[in-house]
Amino acid sequence: SPPSFPITATLFPGDGIGPEIAESVKKVLTTADVPIEWEEHFVGHTVDPRTQSFLTWESLESVRRNKVGLKGPMATPIGKGHRSLNLTLRKELGLYANVRPCYSLPGYKTRYDDVNLVTIRENTEGEYSGLEHQVVRGVVESLKIITRQASLRVAEYAFLYAKTHGRKRVSAIHKANIMRKTDGLFLECCREVAKKYTEIVYEEVIIDNCCMMLVKNPALFDVLVMPNLYGDIISDLCAGLVGGLGLTPSCNIGEHGIALAEAVHGSAPDIAGMNMANPTALLLSAVMMLKHLKLTDKADMIHAAIIKTIADGKYRTADLGGSSSTTDFTKAICGNLNF
Amino acid sequence: SPPSFPITATLFPGDGIGPEIAESVKKVLTTADVPIEWEEHFVGHTVDPRTQSFLTWESLESVRRNKVGLKGPMATPIGKGHRSLNLTLRKELGLYANVRPCYSLPGYKTRYDDVNLVTIRENTEGEYSGLEHQVVRGVVESLKIITRQASLRVAEYAFLYAKTHGRKRVSAIHKANIMRKTDGLFLECCREVAKKYTEIVYEEVIIDNCCMMLVKNPALFDVLVMPNLYGDIISDLCAGLVGGLGLTPSCNIGEHGIALAEAVHGSAPDIAGMNMANPTALLLSAVMMLKHLKLTDKADMIHAAIIKTIADGKYRTADLGGSSSTTDFTKAICGNLNF
Ligand SMILES: CC(C)[C@H](C(=O)O)[C@@H](O)C(=O)O
Ligand SMILES: CC(C)[C@H](C(=O)O)[C@@H](O)C(=O)O
Repeated sequence: SPPSFPITATLFPGDGIGPEIAESVKKVLTTADVPIEWEEHFVGHTVDPRTQSFLTWESLESVRRNKVGLKGPMATPIGKGHRSLNLTLRKELGLYANVRPCYSLPGYKTRYDDVNLVTIRENTEGEYSGLEHQVVRGVVESLKIITRQASLRVAEYAFLYAKTHGRKRVSAIHKANIMRKTDGLFLECCREVAKKYTEIVYEEVIIDNCCMMLVKNPALFDVLVMPNLYGDIISDLCAGLVGGLGLTPSCNIGEHGIALAEAVHGSAPDIAGMNMANPTALLLSAVMMLKHLKLTDKADMIHAAIIKTIADGKYRTADLGGSSSTTDFTKAICGNLNF
Repeated sequence: SPPSFPITATLFPGDGIGPEIAESVKKVLTTADVPIEWEEHFVGHTVDPRTQSFLTWESLESVRRNKVGLKGPMATPIGKGHRSLNLTLRKELGLYANVRPCYSLPGYKTRYDDVNLVTIRENTEGEYSGLEHQVVRGVVESLKIITRQASLRVAEYAFLYAKTHGRKRVSAIHKANIMRKTDGLFLECCREVAKKYTEIVYEEVIIDNCCMMLVKNPALFDVLVMPNLYGDIISDLCAGLVGGLGLTPSCNIGEHGIALAEAVHGSAPDIAGMNMANPTALLLSAVMMLKHLKLTDKADMIHAAIIKTIADGKYRTADLGGSSSTTDFTKAICGNLNF
């Protein structure tokens, strides 16, 4: 059955430049007549005992109810004992896969013009277990946990993504020559899933070699799937190839069909409120959200307008070497919407 | 007191292309009149019970006695239960720091022409503890171990290296926002050492951000020091920036003043014995060994000859897009030695 309109989606504008770039998204989506109603939630000023963090319980309930949301940068307040807001979200919403398409933007020159890949990161376990302790003074250890369940889940997602997005190859990134059991289990799960997708080429690449290949020839890669920390590292490396986190979208896939699109750059407090921020990453993340909602035409139209505005080069924010304000850049995108 | 001549050094030609590139090194050093006598040791065909690996006890004794050596690629025989030869060497010889200078080679074009940095990797612990087990079916864990002793040791080495090599900045690479205790201890040790080197700028960079900065603007970095796995990843990434592991040298610093220079590329069995291999990484590693021995004039002369030969571009091996044989490339280098 077709979705009933309007669709309600949760919006976390976030901190710092968050509210400004969220404004930009609202403006572009409204101009494009996207049938979305936003439920806005802000990070609280006190710790909510039900989330043990500054995230309010209501905001998490909103995502659970709507099953779809968009998130700006959240700065975890400094001080001991505060759980990271990003990690809390991943945990509370079971956001098991972080998906980051990464492609060269026409007209925005970097050292690479041939990047077109997607990193899919396991987002819940591995080195992010939070299990660390001091064995004796001067000796500390941390536990990396790999489970069959989480590995299968992210592998399934990666292959399904590859298939439904016309991608040809999935590379599992690992260090199983050293971590034979943990990364070994991750690879086993990938192999198991690979067997079901005979039309997709499956390969395994050791992480050090992968990074070397990525900087030499990123066109070798298509879809990359990997445990949490490797995904953290490689997705940022890939973003660097095409210009940085200000230009790359992401979407977190969670339990019960939840999708939380997210700009993964920082909250840039130094330029907050100055109408200088680049909303591209959040806009492209919103496009991922629209695609997830099967609002394909709207998604494609907005995507084309963003790409065209950056390619034209007339309106660019300071981080891209221009001097446009956030609002002028946003207006230019709206002007490029091709109904 | 000046070293007594000739100096005896251990040579592990290694497997695959190892013997050919080791020949190249011997030829260049002999032509340059370097007062070195090699004690050659090969990887054995059976497991030596005293090393529990194919490395012979005698070969390790040779390095311990000579305190200096050069190592080609070693392929660990496939099959269960064989300890990795590289890891065995690190463990048995207490090779606590892996040092890899990485710089753009004039005349050999990559996407980067402004790389000039050194990665210093803790080489004994961290994610390489070898401690892994299955908790219950489908749940495995591995232990990352960080100790104050090993962290201080590698930090001391990094700052001393920076100081003695005229470098201005040391960046400690970490993920202490997630692994607060393990990477936190590593950072604490770096900070402690940094206090003693007031002339050196000290900074801390999170690994994901570091990789992004490296691919965008590697000129931002000078000396990087980091735990084992991050070092493994970042040193290969950096090698990729300037052309790959065939062009970058390394040297392992060990207990009791041991220095084992090493080409970290693979043994390339597909081209072994075909006089096609590129000896550059092993040659540049030999130059590091000569510098360690304070044979500075010889080191500089050989280094200049290698750089000139590559820059000239007339003699290049297949991996660099040329068609020279290993021996012709080697002869060209010998011809460029400037006595
Ligand atoms: C902020 C930090 C905890 C986070 C992570 O390490 O996952 C970030 O780097 C990311 O990639 O979203
Ligand atoms: C071969 C492998 C065990 C080794 C490592 O992971 O340390 C290699 O990648 C290196 O960097 O020397």
